[in-house]
Amino acid sequence: MLEIQVKNELIKIVGKDRYLDQLEEISCYAYDAFVVEALPIAVIFPETTKEVSKILQTASRYKIPVTGRGAGTSLCGASIPIRQGIVLCFSKMDKIIDVNTRDRHIIVQPGVINADVQKALLPFKFFYPPDPGSMNTSTIGGNIAMNAGGPRCLKYGVTMDYILGMEVVLSSGKVIRFGSKNIKDVTGYKLSSLFCGSEGTLGIITEATLKVMPMPETAKTLMVTFDNLDNTANAVTDIIGSGIIPVAMELMDKLTLNAIEDSANLGLDREAEGSLLIEIDGVKEACEKEMNNIIEKVKNNGAVHIQEAKSELEREKLWTARRSAYGVFAKLAPDIVTEDVTVPVSKVPIMIRQIIKIANKYGLKVGVLAHAGDGNMHPMIPANKEDKEEWGKVEAVFSEIFQAAAGLGGTLSGEHGIGLAKAPYLPFVMNKDTIDFMKKIKQAVDPDLILNPGKFV
Amino acid sequence: MLEIQVKNELIKIVGKDRYLDQLEEISCYAYDAFVVEALPIAVIFPETTKEVSKILQTASRYKIPVTGRGAGTSLCGASIPIRQGIVLCFSKMDKIIDVNTRDRHIIVQPGVINADVQKALLPFKFFYPPDPGSMNTSTIGGNIAMNAGGPRCLKYGVTMDYILGMEVVLSSGKVIRFGSKNIKDVTGYKLSSLFCGSEGTLGIITEATLKVMPMPETAKTLMVTFDNLDNTANAVTDIIGSGIIPVAMELMDKLTLNAIEDSANLGLDREAEGSLLIEIDGVKEACEKEMNNIIEKVKNNGAVHIQEAKSELEREKLWTARRSAYGVFAKLAPDIVTEDVTVPVSKVPIMIRQIIKIANKYGLKVGVLAHAGDGNMHPMIPANKEDKEEWGKVEAVFSEIFQAAAGLGGTLSGEHGIGLAKAPYLPFVMNKDTIDFMKKIKQAVDPDLILNPGKFV
Repeated sequence: MLEIQVKNELIKIVGKDRYLDQLEEISCYAYDAFVVEALPIAVIFPETTKEVSKILQTASRYKIPVTGRGAGTSLCGASIPIRQGIVLCFSKMDKIIDVNTRDRHIIVQPGVINADVQKALLPFKFFYPPDPGSMNTSTIGGNIAMNAGGPRCLKYGVTMDYILGMEVVLSSGKVIRFGSKNIKDVTGYKLSSLFCGSEGTLGIITEATLKVMPMPETAKTLMVTFDNLDNTANAVTDIIGSGIIPVAMELMDKLTLNAIEDSANLGLDREAEGSLLIEIDGVKEACEKEMNNIIEKVKNNGAVHIQEAKSELEREKLWTARRSAYGVFAKLAPDIVTEDVTVPVSKVPIMIRQIIKIANKYGLKVGVLAHAGDGNMHPMIPANKEDKEEWGKVEAVFSEIFQAAAGLGGTLSGEHGIGLAKAPYLPFVMNKDTIDFMKKIKQAVDPDLILNPGKFV
Repeated sequence: MLEIQVKNELIKIVGKDRYLDQLEEISCYAYDAFVVEALPIAVIFPETTKEVSKILQTASRYKIPVTGRGAGTSLCGASIPIRQGIVLCFSKMDKIIDVNTRDRHIIVQPGVINADVQKALLPFKFFYPPDPGSMNTSTIGGNIAMNAGGPRCLKYGVTMDYILGMEVVLSSGKVIRFGSKNIKDVTGYKLSSLFCGSEGTLGIITEATLKVMPMPETAKTLMVTFDNLDNTANAVTDIIGSGIIPVAMELMDKLTLNAIEDSANLGLDREAEGSLLIEIDGVKEACEKEMNNIIEKVKNNGAVHIQEAKSELEREKLWTARRSAYGVFAKLAPDIVTEDVTVPVSKVPIMIRQIIKIANKYGLKVGVLAHAGDGNMHPMIPANKEDKEEWGKVEAVFSEIFQAAAGLGGTLSGEHGIGLAKAPYLPFVMNKDTIDFMKKIKQAVDPDLILNPGKFV
């Protein structure tokens, strides 16, 4: 527990009801969707920017670590309070402040759930493109802190591409605002991009103005299977090379397809070495023409089985198969680790083979999902954390996978972030001077290193 | 001139031929496309990252200002060596290192001209979307330093959205590399976005990996005129609201249209209060349908005159009219100042009226061009810099325009940057803590403040 004086100061800011420090109250804040756990000393639920500012002034004065938390869905442990201290949970700052589709923006507090942003935009026929797998539970504050992606980011880009303006509380308690409601803004440093993806290590996000997009007229979805991975990947580059950027091109390997089929019995092609779930959107006539073009390209690349969704129900069924992959794998063992190494698109088949080879070497199962259009891969390994020997193998496998990705010009993370999970591997893809440069920025912005300490920087 | 010892050190790095310090050699480096001039002490033409690193080590040791320069097309004086020192000119680092459309990137040195990137991509049917007005002369290094925009950024986004990776030399001479060749990459802080738009104040860009896009199948272009500005702006928001994001929606006011017509005799509607040049691209069938939809929307908003380009020649003619605006205005007086205040789209008509009202109050002519789809406006005032009284009025007009934009939730710059031109106005749109925060970043990264000093930070 915090010293009584500190505790009293914090309670004075938010009141007793929004300050928790009893084990039964705070134990669930020791977790996120990664496999490490650490108990905070207290969990505080701010309701205003002013409260956040005062909390940080106090934390700063007593040098208490502060870890921001949205819905705790981080797959890399970014929201774990590994150095204890305070967890700032944003579930009570969940207001949508303004919806303005005429000026193409929405202004939200950090605790708003991604799916609720979509709901607020639906009546105006607009949407907010970033669609992380966690979108039904994860918050915009968390999405921004991690620069979240998602399947449709292939066409639409990631979270960073949609931030127009932000309000951030610094570790000193000072409140800065930058960017604006303007679609184009080059006034001063692009600070939104510094904070976006900083994983809570530079400041606490208290408001965001997000760019939104008009909904496309229609969408079309196709499931294709191939009898080898090179054909699968070649189809991807051929499609893009022909001038089409699909919304999504989701690749699943044999093991993943079979695991889904075991669980859901959807009639998927069990013999396929690779499959692609391809979605395009836009004007109806364009979708029809592009879909014909895509079918031609996948045929040219030896597609074995082609299934176009003929109805919204069929489309939903195909996406359910894709979305269920993580859940299906999670059921195979007490724990699951999902990574998201990323390589240049043309290297996808080599990388998938390497992933399988490395896992097999250690006698582990691995399923591979990939946002193939942007080379972003999610190898999933089901295992048991309590089995120290097996767990050691899991760690060895991922270390080798990261090294292999680096060797192919790839990187450690396409959308999940670095957090606790990948901090040790940064030197695989960054030289010392670049890592030192990040530390210098961190030191300048948060001199007492109280913001989300113990993470990648 | 620099002390002989310093000069000798610098010549030792690049040789005599690439070190200039004679007035007749260096005088043209005192200018860019803004109206201020300042002579550097020396101009150096590096050929490698190593040379840049050594030059910065020397500059750092002797605390000599260093201003990077691409083609000197900055409209805000960003490349003016206002505190003298060294100009680093990148005309000899102009190699295209790799074109890889399969992995959707191109790797270039900073001195490569934007148009040469387009030429290199043309055979592959790919393009690099950012298209600043200066694209035939301006360099990628300059485009990145300023986060350049352009008409088609409405659909495709600005420079920052296309940077995958960068190599930067810090003021210490240290070389950092971040980002990668991967379309998606959240490994560490998004440093590319910190340097992009930093106007040379944080580091010197020596290499960039840029994302490229497949060329659309076709494009369609429309010129529409209206008898009032509200209708013009309402047409813009109606089109976007209907689900169409055109490539460009270029607005010209009456004075601009008439100035172009005086000069080029293109048959433009001289009575129009507002006009829109609208371009869409994509699949042929989609363009046809969208163009019909756009025509319906502009008719509903009282369009007076609608002209669709029926051939590539007609399309080129319409764009020539738009592109000639700056040149036409530049001919009206010895000097011209073009600004680029930006407001939320729905505020465009109010802002244009304010701009005209403010200029008229001081008895000055103003033409307004706008990238209307993103609220980015270019008021152009022809004037004579030598006429101190008139020049004082120009400055007063712009100060009032910036204040008016700020009052409408707008900002100082959408794509030209802050540089010398707008540094004094930053407090109109940013609070003191935010400006101090930028200074803190600057101080941490460039402790001796030698990089492009005297600018906005």
